[in-house]
Amino acid sequence: MSKYAFGVDIGGTTVKMGLFDKEGCVLDKWEIPTVTDNNGEGILPDIAESIKKVMAEKNITAADVIGVGVGAPGPIDDEGTVFKAVNLGWGVFNIPKVLGGYLNLPVKAGNDANVAALGEMWQGGGKGHSNMVAVTLGTGVGGGIIIGGKIVTGATGAGGEIGHIHIEDAETESCGCKNYGCLEQYASATGVVRLAKRRLAKDEKASSLRQGNISAKAVFDAVKAGDDVAIEIAQQFGDYLGKGLAAVAAVVNPEIFVVGGGVSKAGEILFEYIKPAYEKYAFHGCRSAEFALATLGNDAGIYGAAALVIN
Amino acid sequence: MSKYAFGVDIGGTTVKMGLFDKEGCVLDKWEIPTVTDNNGEGILPDIAESIKKVMAEKNITAADVIGVGVGAPGPIDDEGTVFKAVNLGWGVFNIPKVLGGYLNLPVKAGNDANVAALGEMWQGGGKGHSNMVAVTLGTGVGGGIIIGGKIVTGATGAGGEIGHIHIEDAETESCGCKNYGCLEQYASATGVVRLAKRRLAKDEKASSLRQGNISAKAVFDAVKAGDDVAIEIAQQFGDYLGKGLAAVAAVVNPEIFVVGGGVSKAGEILFEYIKPAYEKYAFHGCRSAEFALATLGNDAGIYGAAALVIN
Repeated sequence: MSKYAFGVDIGGTTVKMGLFDKEGCVLDKWEIPTVTDNNGEGILPDIAESIKKVMAEKNITAADVIGVGVGAPGPIDDEGTVFKAVNLGWGVFNIPKVLGGYLNLPVKAGNDANVAALGEMWQGGGKGHSNMVAVTLGTGVGGGIIIGGKIVTGATGAGGEIGHIHIEDAETESCGCKNYGCLEQYASATGVVRLAKRRLAKDEKASSLRQGNISAKAVFDAVKAGDDVAIEIAQQFGDYLGKGLAAVAAVVNPEIFVVGGGVSKAGEILFEYIKPAYEKYAFHGCRSAEFALATLGNDAGIYGAAALVIN
Repeated sequence: MSKYAFGVDIGGTTVKMGLFDKEGCVLDKWEIPTVTDNNGEGILPDIAESIKKVMAEKNITAADVIGVGVGAPGPIDDEGTVFKAVNLGWGVFNIPKVLGGYLNLPVKAGNDANVAALGEMWQGGGKGHSNMVAVTLGTGVGGGIIIGGKIVTGATGAGGEIGHIHIEDAETESCGCKNYGCLEQYASATGVVRLAKRRLAKDEKASSLRQGNISAKAVFDAVKAGDDVAIEIAQQFGDYLGKGLAAVAAVVNPEIFVVGGGVSKAGEILFEYIKPAYEKYAFHGCRSAEFALATLGNDAGIYGAAALVIN
């Protein structure tokens, strides 16, 4: 009976890999470099070789392996076909077909952000839930929508692009996507800095944020220290994010929001600012949604990749 | 081999019923009154009796019937359990279990709005698609989210409550849901009237809308006649609705929006006002979504109910 699964998370510089049992325990974790030369043509052969090596070392036969799950950056459809992954140099091809050809094992693949969301549902902050929205507050704002245990990829792979919900009519700076007033412009790490700079420029009110570099971390550290200006900034951040997540809830009505990414390192204090706004703007039927922090950090991708083949 | 399915759409005054072949052709359609006396305890027995009568008349045996699908007003979970349908007097019980007991046939049930969305996907404006958002512009604004051919009911049955996406911070009147600034306050039939009254009160600019009763129909009739004030109102309606649907698209990235309900009787002209706003606010990956009018009208419910058991 098959007992093991491999989870593979392909990033721009390293490929993270994990060997899992089917209960979701990670038995081994390792990394190999991502070689993007020649349009990344060596990436999948390198992964196949690394998996074969681990199987040989541990006396794991093909019959022992449920399959290999892969997360990769770029739009990937439900059949595992990638449509250009610019960071890897990849064009259009079917990952399960190519990697499965090298390994003679079942392979499934998905977009890395969506796969990480699946990992958080399986063994992280969303454990025990099957209707979940993952919210990643990093350089941008990403999302992963999971309905009935399955990722919603959408018609063109743009499912869960919640950072680009329009949230502010008055915005004059453009978002990375070229629109104006996207959620990402206020709730990402750079968004918090934007809110902070604007607030500080408004008047001369004393704040520890007037010394040193402004970062999302500095803002939430100042909030924890009771800095009034930082608290105003956190309230604005929470209002935008709570409003955005209320819109998400009116569409898919999740059981839980699982919040990860760099900004989430501030911890539970985030929810003191997000939840009141969420409850204000959310439809009454959606107000009971839970909020939890992501717990798997950079391992969410390998967990979710393994979940692709196990669940 | 089973060849037929029954679709049942329970409304507050009549129960609409249809006999379908499995290709989705309606072979017969009829109605019975909805008797809500004694907490609606007679509704399911009346439906069972009516189905048995039609089966006897047409020499249809139980083996010929794939099943009976039911749409009913109220929150209904994926197993067909209704959680209070106030219009029918119903409390909490499992519709498939009760109706299946009377009929000795497989029964499935869902919320009427969601079931109607499924009908439009199967044989209506969304035919050929499996990722679709149905938008109903009636007294309120309703929605039905379909992913991979399945309705998204959500954690508490509030999936697709897109009328309650917060869209206007400056609103001072409350929505039926008690929040302020919901999409429904501007894009429903009553919402269009609200926008019209506010616009007319703003100045004295000539408009045919200053005579007679203001209704959504009157506004779009005036738009078609080239009335400048009516066109301004339509632009505002389109801006709100386009913005709201762009938020929906950033979550589930549908292939198509299918627009129905009373306001949609204005026809394709609606899209002249919705689409430019949608394209302005939507994430680039979602901009190619199609827009179509619902085509099944009041029959969408029986089609969708039959689809519950056929698909």
